[in-house]
Amino acid sequence: MGWGVIEVSGSRLRHIANGTAKSGTGELADRLVSLHDQLEDVIAEFAPTAAAVEQTFVNKDGSGTLKLGQARGIALLVPARAGLAIGEYAPNKVKKAVVGVGHADKAQVQHMVKLQLPGVELAGADAADALAIAICHAHHLQSAQATARRVSA
Amino acid sequence: MGWGVIEVSGSRLRHIANGTAKSGTGELADRLVSLHDQLEDVIAEFAPTAAAVEQTFVNKDGSGTLKLGQARGIALLVPARAGLAIGEYAPNKVKKAVVGVGHADKAQVQHMVKLQLPGVELAGADAADALAIAICHAHHLQSAQATARRVSA
Repeated sequence: MGWGVIEVSGSRLRHIANGTAKSGTGELADRLVSLHDQLEDVIAEFAPTAAAVEQTFVNKDGSGTLKLGQARGIALLVPARAGLAIGEYAPNKVKKAVVGVGHADKAQVQHMVKLQLPGVELAGADAADALAIAICHAHHLQSAQATARRVSA
Repeated sequence: MGWGVIEVSGSRLRHIANGTAKSGTGELADRLVSLHDQLEDVIAEFAPTAAAVEQTFVNKDGSGTLKLGQARGIALLVPARAGLAIGEYAPNKVKKAVVGVGHADKAQVQHMVKLQLPGVELAGADAADALAIAICHAHHLQSAQATARRVSA
């Protein structure tokens, strides 16, 4: 499971950290505890003020969907227990926000993440996706604020 | 999500408590936190020494499977974080252990749960299922111990 942390100042984005939480090879419950603890460590270390998680593709592989659901439950639980509001974005919304089109491939996403977060070193494809979700959430919050300013102006 | 707590002394089973954790109607992440906190309260109150969770049916409804997975991730996380080993049993194994056949209906399961836990008042069908899983796990641990005794005799 990839994760990424960015800093947003007005319209400027800055990379803080990214990485991959490994779930290991033990019992399912222990792997979920491991994911939980790694995500809790990320939140404790970087103290984010907002969070976002990708909406999951549901496919015909029921067993894979169940596994994804179990891990996703943890990915939602940890930031919610830390008191963070959590944005959820479908993968095509994330690509649209970062690349400009909803059907971009992984290489394009990674390229645009690197352009928008100068100096970033990506821990892998999942970490790049996580940073893309963070960028998407930042854009979303900025346009929500801009709308609020227009409404209140 | 149903839960149930029993006490096992040798081959004697005794009902301790059962109930249903409600996830409410808010945001998904908040509902998962609510499930988490209710399960954590159950474990804090009754301090069990073992736990068991039903293996989940994977069906063609991908969206339902994802939701089930998210909740199941929490059901596995909470006892595992409390340091409990967790048994996992397929629904037909649970029915076989409690009713004697793998294809029993809910009414039969509830009937046999009531017979094996005299005086129990069931909080609902999900709570009855949870007690059935606990009974199944107790049987499983007993036969594992009996085997160990035979091996060491």
